[in-house]
Amino acid sequence: MTRESVRAAHLGELDTPCLLLDEPRMMANIERLKSRMARLGVGLRPHLKTPKSIEVARRLMASPEGPATVSTLQEAEQFAQAGVRDILYAVGISASKLDRVLALRAGGADLTVVVDSLAAAQAVAERSRAAHYRIPALIEVDCDGHRAGVNPANTELLVSIGRALHEGGAELRGVMTHAGESYNARDVEAIRAMAEQERRAAVDCAEALRGAGLPCPIVSVGSTPTAMYAENLDGVTEVRAGVFVFFDLVMAGLGVCEQDDIALSVLTTVIGHQPEKGWILVDAGWMAMSRDRGTARQPVDQYYGVVCDMEGRPMGDLVLKETNQEQGILMLRPGSQAALPDLPLGTRVRVLPNHACATGAQHDAYQVVRGESPLVVASWERFRGW
Amino acid sequence: MTRESVRAAHLGELDTPCLLLDEPRMMANIERLKSRMARLGVGLRPHLKTPKSIEVARRLMASPEGPATVSTLQEAEQFAQAGVRDILYAVGISASKLDRVLALRAGGADLTVVVDSLAAAQAVAERSRAAHYRIPALIEVDCDGHRAGVNPANTELLVSIGRALHEGGAELRGVMTHAGESYNARDVEAIRAMAEQERRAAVDCAEALRGAGLPCPIVSVGSTPTAMYAENLDGVTEVRAGVFVFFDLVMAGLGVCEQDDIALSVLTTVIGHQPEKGWILVDAGWMAMSRDRGTARQPVDQYYGVVCDMEGRPMGDLVLKETNQEQGILMLRPGSQAALPDLPLGTRVRVLPNHACATGAQHDAYQVVRGESPLVVASWERFRGW
Repeated sequence: MTRESVRAAHLGELDTPCLLLDEPRMMANIERLKSRMARLGVGLRPHLKTPKSIEVARRLMASPEGPATVSTLQEAEQFAQAGVRDILYAVGISASKLDRVLALRAGGADLTVVVDSLAAAQAVAERSRAAHYRIPALIEVDCDGHRAGVNPANTELLVSIGRALHEGGAELRGVMTHAGESYNARDVEAIRAMAEQERRAAVDCAEALRGAGLPCPIVSVGSTPTAMYAENLDGVTEVRAGVFVFFDLVMAGLGVCEQDDIALSVLTTVIGHQPEKGWILVDAGWMAMSRDRGTARQPVDQYYGVVCDMEGRPMGDLVLKETNQEQGILMLRPGSQAALPDLPLGTRVRVLPNHACATGAQHDAYQVVRGESPLVVASWERFRGW
Repeated sequence: MTRESVRAAHLGELDTPCLLLDEPRMMANIERLKSRMARLGVGLRPHLKTPKSIEVARRLMASPEGPATVSTLQEAEQFAQAGVRDILYAVGISASKLDRVLALRAGGADLTVVVDSLAAAQAVAERSRAAHYRIPALIEVDCDGHRAGVNPANTELLVSIGRALHEGGAELRGVMTHAGESYNARDVEAIRAMAEQERRAAVDCAEALRGAGLPCPIVSVGSTPTAMYAENLDGVTEVRAGVFVFFDLVMAGLGVCEQDDIALSVLTTVIGHQPEKGWILVDAGWMAMSRDRGTARQPVDQYYGVVCDMEGRPMGDLVLKETNQEQGILMLRPGSQAALPDLPLGTRVRVLPNHACATGAQHDAYQVVRGESPLVVASWERFRGW
């Protein structure tokens, strides 16, 4: 799974479509967030649902053993097999998944689960008692109404869940929250405010648990936007973020990164022209890009992606405007006064993705590139499934 | 790749999320279109981009050797390895893919490629001469302005492409077209009109080629909507269709099938509740469903899918309204007067997909189910990539 087969090929030699990973950009993205976290005095627990690759994970994590965040038990199993030990499974646990959780822990992984209801806490506690083993759990808190989690104002429920875990035979490890609404922020000021709201919700809940005599060693927050703009993380013990490792057009549209920071692109070949319609057809459709249209609700719609040349420079107003399963249509942005570039049959271009997690998931490997005239220096496998 | 591991499990025993395939519904869908084609006197060349599974392909094709349509060379290679011989690669060919085309043909597959420009025809002819081997090609015709293809009114260009193939050393096999706009039709009458327009364009182009003294043995048309509603296929030699094997909510919204015909669903488990918001959280997010929102532009928006019970019966107004990567939110349709059903933690439901091709592509296997209290009778692998 972790083999690195050095190829040193030119982009023209690759089969298309395929997924390119600009390693220097990725390393710069990692360093940027790591230094931020160091300045704020908080550890990073990177979310590995974005890369799903042990090669990327090793460059992301503080140590080969973690810490790490995952979104599926498949990710937990793959990373555990590759030596990662400190893993948070950050999606609400269901009783039917506890066998796999116990198997992972028996294999040496320190896997923590998440609950946000009394029923889930009781199920984890019950299974802990049956297994004579304290399964560690965080309580998820809903800091912004975006998704799952206990309402942080509902201290009574929070403490009941804490007690059900702690007194029921499981291990109460703390609280976690995720400012998912930060993806819909309109500007950086709004993101800063969300970061503080996220911190406040987590810290308040941690204090409520401690005030009730319950343990709460971990106070976990995070999303890429809030991690990039938080100014104060007092009381927080760790930050989770995933998409920052590659960034994407949604993040650039939010102002969280520049387009030049985006480390992922899809390499595609021109396969046809419909000059009277202003169309250039390529062999990357929605199968290669995903159906994610996350920039559609942003001020600048990037359609299925921004088109760049082989060196990664955006080609003016050219976008991947429409897609079929295995065919895409490059067009100028609506209203553009530019001339359609002349891209003969066989020309290759790179398309920056709307959403790195979704586009990455369509591919089984990263073709790792470096340099201004990029060379493919490695191929790193990705995994998937549940 | 083709192993069938009999499990006879109940749905409650499966890890979730996973992809269910209702085999009796699939077989009925196949029989329905096959009898239609038989009545119209035309052969079916099923599009295997939808199933990407040899087990499904064998149930779809007229014989174990085909004929079949594919959308990637990866599909061609996988199916050729499993014994399929008569394969049409229905996306415009690029010169860089001709090595793999020649390797497939050398291995015994009768693979046909598609061109829609003089430049592409010349590239195929040139490679044929260099290889001392006539690569067979169809000319793509654009019957509805939807995608690629020669404008059928441009007889001059069509004949030039035909000559470039035939006289240049390749094998001109005929013409093909695809009424992609039929997916946007508003009613069945519009689909019938599009079927006739699709037939007319292909037959007219075939006649133009023959009138110029060129061969045109194959006249290939197709899309699931037009295949289901065409009333006259005179002059057509084969019909291509893919999604009909499973159907989906987009096809049901078009009136091309009933919801009861949909053979694919995603099995998911309830992992949380936010009662004050009317939310039920499940472990199927966009990773399990895909980001396809094809019903958003139809009269009835089905969001990320219609929620059914374990037996496959729709649960009133419950839909998969929103998704995160590994989490989905079930809600009542906006405006519904129904009460939110009581689905305790651990309850399992099935979600019908918007687009079978896109949802299928998120999974590595079909869990094949039969019966009113469904049992899992087999697991069939899917493949992917390019």
